[in-house]
Amino acid sequence: PDYQMAAMAMAIYFRGMSFAETEHLTREMMQSGVVLDHSYLPGMKLDKHSTGGIGDKVSLVLAPLVACFGIAVPMVSGRGLGHTGGTLDKLESIPGYRVSLSREEFSEVLRSTGCAIVSSTEEMAPADAKLYALRDVTGTVDSNPLMCASIMSKKLAEGIDGMVLDIKVGTGAFLKEMDQARELAVTMIEVGKRMGKKMAAVISDMNQPLGDAAGNSLEVVESCETLQGRGPADLEEITLRLGALMLQMGGVASRQIDALNLLREKIDDGSAFRRFRDMVRAQGGNPDALSDYGLLPTASARTEIESPADGYVGAIDGEGIGTALVFLNAGRKKVGESINPAVGATGFKRIGDRVGKGEVLCVLHHDGGKDLPKAVDLLKSSFEIVSDPVDPPPLIREMLT
Amino acid sequence: PDYQMAAMAMAIYFRGMSFAETEHLTREMMQSGVVLDHSYLPGMKLDKHSTGGIGDKVSLVLAPLVACFGIAVPMVSGRGLGHTGGTLDKLESIPGYRVSLSREEFSEVLRSTGCAIVSSTEEMAPADAKLYALRDVTGTVDSNPLMCASIMSKKLAEGIDGMVLDIKVGTGAFLKEMDQARELAVTMIEVGKRMGKKMAAVISDMNQPLGDAAGNSLEVVESCETLQGRGPADLEEITLRLGALMLQMGGVASRQIDALNLLREKIDDGSAFRRFRDMVRAQGGNPDALSDYGLLPTASARTEIESPADGYVGAIDGEGIGTALVFLNAGRKKVGESINPAVGATGFKRIGDRVGKGEVLCVLHHDGGKDLPKAVDLLKSSFEIVSDPVDPPPLIREMLT
Repeated sequence: PDYQMAAMAMAIYFRGMSFAETEHLTREMMQSGVVLDHSYLPGMKLDKHSTGGIGDKVSLVLAPLVACFGIAVPMVSGRGLGHTGGTLDKLESIPGYRVSLSREEFSEVLRSTGCAIVSSTEEMAPADAKLYALRDVTGTVDSNPLMCASIMSKKLAEGIDGMVLDIKVGTGAFLKEMDQARELAVTMIEVGKRMGKKMAAVISDMNQPLGDAAGNSLEVVESCETLQGRGPADLEEITLRLGALMLQMGGVASRQIDALNLLREKIDDGSAFRRFRDMVRAQGGNPDALSDYGLLPTASARTEIESPADGYVGAIDGEGIGTALVFLNAGRKKVGESINPAVGATGFKRIGDRVGKGEVLCVLHHDGGKDLPKAVDLLKSSFEIVSDPVDPPPLIREMLT
Repeated sequence: PDYQMAAMAMAIYFRGMSFAETEHLTREMMQSGVVLDHSYLPGMKLDKHSTGGIGDKVSLVLAPLVACFGIAVPMVSGRGLGHTGGTLDKLESIPGYRVSLSREEFSEVLRSTGCAIVSSTEEMAPADAKLYALRDVTGTVDSNPLMCASIMSKKLAEGIDGMVLDIKVGTGAFLKEMDQARELAVTMIEVGKRMGKKMAAVISDMNQPLGDAAGNSLEVVESCETLQGRGPADLEEITLRLGALMLQMGGVASRQIDALNLLREKIDDGSAFRRFRDMVRAQGGNPDALSDYGLLPTASARTEIESPADGYVGAIDGEGIGTALVFLNAGRKKVGESINPAVGATGFKRIGDRVGKGEVLCVLHHDGGKDLPKAVDLLKSSFEIVSDPVDPPPLIREMLT
């Protein structure tokens, strides 16, 4: 019953769980529904999970890129809630793209393109949906063993052989502290290995948006650019690092440097972008929108957010940026709300950048509305301008296997 | 909702609560229903609460005894569950005795006799009933702040000015450890005082049954005897100690020794027993059964439990004795079960007593049944016979005000 699940969640919140206990919970939750079987595909099946952040469009680039190497990526993803975006929302800004596929359709897309990014169904890990809803209303979301069981039960129900984790830490991430991020990574790696899966994790910085764009259709544009070698350095770096780990897991390369080079080749020769177009087409989306960006939802207005002073960008409140965009319906305050896929921000100044008074910190793409002044104010105050120079933070904080 | 109450109970179980938090919870639970008002009675309204044990019939003796001094005792009591008995079950073995009185009837009995022992109603502290049911199924019964709020919210809804606590500790009690008993006593005294009530507590030993009898009608007999000065020493001592604290609270006596003497007078001159008869009659019971014990339910058979060896009674497993009696329906395994009021045990040997092999450790009163051998075995094994002499444990462990 609900009351025992809620009490259990609270007990776990305060007492934690051993690896063995977390493994058992994960396994039970995974087996509460269908566990997919992709044995009809010849190669390894791998996936990536990110704990989420501002501008995190890694999945859109990574899945087709890795699929170029005969590794299947059967990615079941989620929608955005709160200040962070969701992969499905981004893809749904592509006209026609369908995230809800039947099991047969999912298999068909995987067979033809090697990757698919779809929504979860009620038949996958239903215990997680139930427990998560209770955690949400009992203040027990922020518990490593519960997060591990929630994430892993859903991901392993995809029928994968292994996964890489992108644990984000910083002002724009769910986890604010390095210690908790490391503990979550270690727990998930250990639990995954106990369940016979190949596991690796990257802990990456989320003290500023990832890439130059945040907002659903704007991130699709940036993903297309990145798949063609024209993306921002930070997005490319984290994507290649995660991809290299997946290539190593899949036996495609044994050394990180070789894997990185192989990945770059598939970007440079156009394979990765073609693979993305194929996947989008297979899932009902219009592939032309991936080149002719005018076919994507576009905002009617742009407002430049200007620096209030001369100085350096000392810190960025990622949660503030995300919340400002949610004010304008780029994301959801509540489950089930509709969103405006055109809303977002681009051209972020980064931590350490020198800025003059009045210089543009970022550009807000919007369709007006009564919440615009509130969003503009919050965006502006999300950039802290300081007088002394600041070192840019490293993107990759730690890699764990 | 249930799931948030259950999660809250678990959080309190692991984290505890400050006195202020416990006070707030207690007050909210008390105010979740009707709080009685006995301002129509001239004197103080006081009560006693015991955490329960084997053979604990103190309420039956104490309420009429204290009522002799113009102190009203509006006692709302409970039924037995598990290995400990319940005051209401004991009184219901008196033919005709009604524990469910309307609010008007309750006031009428109090007005005429100064004491009444009744069951709670759904309109008193309903939040406690709800929370307790959830604690029962979430493993959170054993939490001092939750126990405090549960007990005090119900007791203070009686409309009393103060109360004495009989916190029992030992093998036959819910609390096995002195530390937890002391902490519970301190919490309840502090919370009661913050709510403007007079409070005192006795921590008493429950490593062996209280008095010579356990079982509902057998305890009524022993209560009648004690009210007439013929009771066992331990039952009389704890009753007089608690009564003396109540007389001091009520301003009847300032010194403990004076209060004890006043109480003994009311036993010796027959007032206390008359008051009990009056209360029983006012609640519909047959007062003749309090002298002619053949009118009470009587078991059809007796089985003597014999010592397996020469030696001394080294320890008694009170929970074992209680459980053996529950096997024969002296108490309930589950809420709502019917009980056999005639079943019980008498003539307990006490810790430190010298016993010969085959000597009677206690006498089981029963009506046969398939569980009889199991009950006999458990009763027998509840007495530990050792070869070296053992000191009897002191009854009163601590008094706190």
